[in-house]
Amino acid sequence: MIKTRITELLGIEYPIVQGGMAWVADASLASAVSNAGGLGLISSINASADTVLEEIRKCKKMTNKPFGVNIMLMSPIADQVAQFVIDEQVPIVSTGAGTPAKYMEQWLKAGIKVIPVVASAAYAIRMEKIGAVAVVAEGGEAGGHIGEMNTMALIPQVCDAVSIPVIAAGGIADGRGFAAAMMLGAEGVQIGTRFITATESNAHDNYKQKIIAAGDTDTIVTGKSLGHPVRALKTPFSRKFAQMENDPTQTPESIMEFGSGSLRKAVKDGDEKMGSFMAGQGSGLVKKVQPAKEIILEIVSDARNLLEGSSKYF
Amino acid sequence: MIKTRITELLGIEYPIVQGGMAWVADASLASAVSNAGGLGLISSINASADTVLEEIRKCKKMTNKPFGVNIMLMSPIADQVAQFVIDEQVPIVSTGAGTPAKYMEQWLKAGIKVIPVVASAAYAIRMEKIGAVAVVAEGGEAGGHIGEMNTMALIPQVCDAVSIPVIAAGGIADGRGFAAAMMLGAEGVQIGTRFITATESNAHDNYKQKIIAAGDTDTIVTGKSLGHPVRALKTPFSRKFAQMENDPTQTPESIMEFGSGSLRKAVKDGDEKMGSFMAGQGSGLVKKVQPAKEIILEIVSDARNLLEGSSKYF
Repeated sequence: MIKTRITELLGIEYPIVQGGMAWVADASLASAVSNAGGLGLISSINASADTVLEEIRKCKKMTNKPFGVNIMLMSPIADQVAQFVIDEQVPIVSTGAGTPAKYMEQWLKAGIKVIPVVASAAYAIRMEKIGAVAVVAEGGEAGGHIGEMNTMALIPQVCDAVSIPVIAAGGIADGRGFAAAMMLGAEGVQIGTRFITATESNAHDNYKQKIIAAGDTDTIVTGKSLGHPVRALKTPFSRKFAQMENDPTQTPESIMEFGSGSLRKAVKDGDEKMGSFMAGQGSGLVKKVQPAKEIILEIVSDARNLLEGSSKYF
Repeated sequence: MIKTRITELLGIEYPIVQGGMAWVADASLASAVSNAGGLGLISSINASADTVLEEIRKCKKMTNKPFGVNIMLMSPIADQVAQFVIDEQVPIVSTGAGTPAKYMEQWLKAGIKVIPVVASAAYAIRMEKIGAVAVVAEGGEAGGHIGEMNTMALIPQVCDAVSIPVIAAGGIADGRGFAAAMMLGAEGVQIGTRFITATESNAHDNYKQKIIAAGDTDTIVTGKSLGHPVRALKTPFSRKFAQMENDPTQTPESIMEFGSGSLRKAVKDGDEKMGSFMAGQGSGLVKKVQPAKEIILEIVSDARNLLEGSSKYF
């Protein structure tokens, strides 16, 4: 067990949150992480709003521990999912891509603990003001949609800016990253990429194998020209996407059409040509498919050994 | 005192290396850092090769502790400085922007310890093979010329790739960053931005004040279109540079001409309009001008308290 404000606040054993990855984060993965003592999240980006509702109901049957739902605020079904979490008494909601301000009153009234993902100190301050119980501060080494700040510099500055606890994300995949995050002032971590390869993750095996095979420089950021930078593995799709962004004969519309549905193709079909295999710079640290519980216990035990062993330096 | 392979190898008290920042890193700053128990570096980018030689000779008079010279390998005076370090018996050389392979034989024969700056695991492996005693692994949150990988994900992957000790750089400005770097597997840190604001730094006071005033999101990366991304504070100059990169009527030549001499203008003249104030994402962690010794002792003492205090979590 580890005791921080995050474990106490959320009623979990280990302050390890599983990223609410679109298409990947379903009841199977979320319940496995929660059952192992971490915090599992279900993504609001899945086949349909009804599918999300189903996954929430499934998850409640699969675990009696706390779990949460990640709501991507720009999603067209955000309003629906925002209501589901109240109806289904989901204890924790994390939010991304915008401010959850318009939902806060009803969520707080329903007793939901809200944890927005932020990429700057200023945004963290805004979230604390509207009633967030914690923030996930995510650096640009993360997979998927990213901001400008990187983890090493972002975490201490967010910690200095707010008094609510901070969960560090971006580039964290093992006990070293966990221990480092704690030293930066975080009281927990959010891990995405490594949980994609968990045994209980329903991501296509091609996706898992690509992450396991990746080295440190095997990711690329695309979408900057569209205002939505995204980190993914270097594949035919992401290279072509980058090329199109540099091609003056392409329009934002033609590029977006090319990208449409590409994450689903990676997660569900393992489509090596047209799939967008979103993953972070920590991919090179992921070595094998393991049960979520093994991942969590390994991270915690390695971090503990590192922190306790640090006295050798002094 | 802290004991790691870096302190033992370099004969220093604290494994804190001062970045070899162009125009900033002179005898005054380097000797102050070395006298305080860290490793001071003199930059090879200054007014002329003769100036660099003068700074080396001055530094030898100002400290009897080890110091080094950073050689920017793309610089037109690299060959000259590569010889100076042998003639002047400089004990440590760090290198950036390329491979020091062609100098290695003579440097190793002269007993010089070579520490290249790297931005990937593959490059670190190459440097170990040609005889580097350590590497500085630098993440993209650093100021000045940067790579693609960020610190949190880069350090553990470089540590896994080589058996020589790793010095972490990028986004590290206080005891939290130092402690985090040690947890990631580094055995020392390199700090740039915070030392620009040291009392003994000859950077113009406008430069120091701009860093102190900066918040977390006040840096910008320019030069990507030219193949040389550089992180600097957001100022009229860097914004205009970014604008020119997006302007199809500009050529790489016109943009480079606009940027020519801009770092010198910032360091020497504090030129708020045409200066390039290179600085890292850790700028928001820098709060005041302090002597180098105070900076080092504060970082070490804070890191020690954090590492020793971590038992409270378990």
